[in-house]
Amino acid sequence: MTSTPAKNPQIHLVSRPTGEALAANFKLIDADLPELQDGQVLVRHHFMSLDPYMRGRMNDAKSYAVPQPLNAVMQGGTVGEVVASKNAHYAVGDKVVGFGGWQQYSIVDGNTPGLLRKVDTTHVPLSAYLGAVGMPGVTAWYGLTQIIKPKAGNTVVVSAASGAVGSAVGQLAKARGCRAVGIAGGIDKCRYVVDELGFDACIDYKAHTDAKSLHEALRDATPDGVDGAFENVGGPVLDAVLARMNAFGRIALCGMISGYDGEPIPIKQPQLILMSRLTITGFIVSEHMEIWPEALKELGTMVATGKLKYRESVAQGLAAAPEAFLGLLKGRNFGKQIVKLV
Amino acid sequence: MTSTPAKNPQIHLVSRPTGEALAANFKLIDADLPELQDGQVLVRHHFMSLDPYMRGRMNDAKSYAVPQPLNAVMQGGTVGEVVASKNAHYAVGDKVVGFGGWQQYSIVDGNTPGLLRKVDTTHVPLSAYLGAVGMPGVTAWYGLTQIIKPKAGNTVVVSAASGAVGSAVGQLAKARGCRAVGIAGGIDKCRYVVDELGFDACIDYKAHTDAKSLHEALRDATPDGVDGAFENVGGPVLDAVLARMNAFGRIALCGMISGYDGEPIPIKQPQLILMSRLTITGFIVSEHMEIWPEALKELGTMVATGKLKYRESVAQGLAAAPEAFLGLLKGRNFGKQIVKLV
Repeated sequence: MTSTPAKNPQIHLVSRPTGEALAANFKLIDADLPELQDGQVLVRHHFMSLDPYMRGRMNDAKSYAVPQPLNAVMQGGTVGEVVASKNAHYAVGDKVVGFGGWQQYSIVDGNTPGLLRKVDTTHVPLSAYLGAVGMPGVTAWYGLTQIIKPKAGNTVVVSAASGAVGSAVGQLAKARGCRAVGIAGGIDKCRYVVDELGFDACIDYKAHTDAKSLHEALRDATPDGVDGAFENVGGPVLDAVLARMNAFGRIALCGMISGYDGEPIPIKQPQLILMSRLTITGFIVSEHMEIWPEALKELGTMVATGKLKYRESVAQGLAAAPEAFLGLLKGRNFGKQIVKLV
Repeated sequence: MTSTPAKNPQIHLVSRPTGEALAANFKLIDADLPELQDGQVLVRHHFMSLDPYMRGRMNDAKSYAVPQPLNAVMQGGTVGEVVASKNAHYAVGDKVVGFGGWQQYSIVDGNTPGLLRKVDTTHVPLSAYLGAVGMPGVTAWYGLTQIIKPKAGNTVVVSAASGAVGSAVGQLAKARGCRAVGIAGGIDKCRYVVDELGFDACIDYKAHTDAKSLHEALRDATPDGVDGAFENVGGPVLDAVLARMNAFGRIALCGMISGYDGEPIPIKQPQLILMSRLTITGFIVSEHMEIWPEALKELGTMVATGKLKYRESVAQGLAAAPEAFLGLLKGRNFGKQIVKLV
């Protein structure tokens, strides 16, 4: 056990967006760090995670999670190192995954199950536990294996394909003998998805700004139609995918990032759900904790053996988090967006 | 065996709609009836069925069925009586359900499985085999038991609630201990749904022409939210239902009648599928023949014992079929729309 630092820089949500989220919604606070109590663990965060779902929580509206409270630390996943412990289960130097929020340190009750998880960084880098071997990876695993349930030879399409979730979806699909087709924004991301991640094809939606052009590009990339779709975006991309779905296709609806700001984006041709007898399932991976061990085992093994590749966009320092988060919402990240804190 | 009649009046599709379907798309033909060949059965149709799905088939577009051919008899379900037989399995006087189309007679190969099914009219009226104990009833049964899978105490909402499918959905839900809430067009239909069919509530969508008013009416009728929805209509009704769905709700998508003519009607707030972690499944009951025996058994028993009530709109004579069909698309029918041919 080491001495407790006196200060804990943190970022609060101080106002809710009325349309687009803005940097002014956040404020950097130099909070005091209280004394560690019996049973508690002090974690110094090395990396924190920025994820699209956080945008939904910024609204004070019906969502899949309770809203992020105002004038409180922004919540989110973190990885770090135990720097002080008054709990027999945790020792200084332990590497841990938690939900510490946008701050340099967190004080965690080590006796409450699920708050902290010790991880092994021998073969898997610490930051990967926020991405490929963390919530985004498990999200990919759940949607693919539990909703899309692809068979070898199926075609699986995933949007935001170079991102933390999408890149895992395609590689997990390839490992199951599927044709994996990505949709991403920009030629660099598309090249990465095909050349480095091993997808069979990737469509640059920014090069297809009208619905007809996007549809034709997707048609060319999916000559046998689409059996499963993993949807991270919504809007025109989802419309294009719907039109290419084969009978009895499955769509795992994981995100609608294009609709988080301002007005929702409609599904233009819902009759396709009926005509193609599709199943669309929305899901939140944190509600399916029972599958995490199996998912993390496959994801961890694949990362350790180089079969699951990923890329990170790393923002430097806590103060950079708001801009990095706003950039993520606009697709400016390339791979998993994290913030480096040490 | 009796002598074969010489003429067989029938209705052909002679052109495809460019927007709204029109009477001019159909033509009454006085066709010749060929001689009966060995193995064949001549069925005189007593009733023929008019169903919303027929509108989809009138288009020459991707749909869940091959398009209805031009200049050929409109296809559709029929019930009738064997009036001549060159097949040992069928005797004159047998009552049969088939897919004879919009014509007075059909000649059927009695040796091809599935084309004809003999039915017992002791406790179930012949016409009911086109409705409550036929395709619409099985459609209701499938969507409710295989997709919505309600538990006692769940709230189930069904649109087109006074129709052939909707009325069965609600009564099957009530039989399973659910709260059944209908949506129908007009005060008479709503009164029938509650007073005669035993639904807990019914909303007249014609009295709620703006989204806010419809939403409030549905909110009042579903104080505990909606666990399962059986959607026959689409459009604003589906939008209102989506906003009332509880977490993990199931939507059986059976019809999008409001979108058959002209432009598709979007789903305005698809993010609700994600926020409420819904599953939406489109289905066509004819693709699930394995469940028909179990479904028909429950439906037949319920009709025979008075526990499944239904209403019929009966058009008189083959020539009345096109107008009755167009009226069905506009919701002018009240209960199962059939045409009486004898």
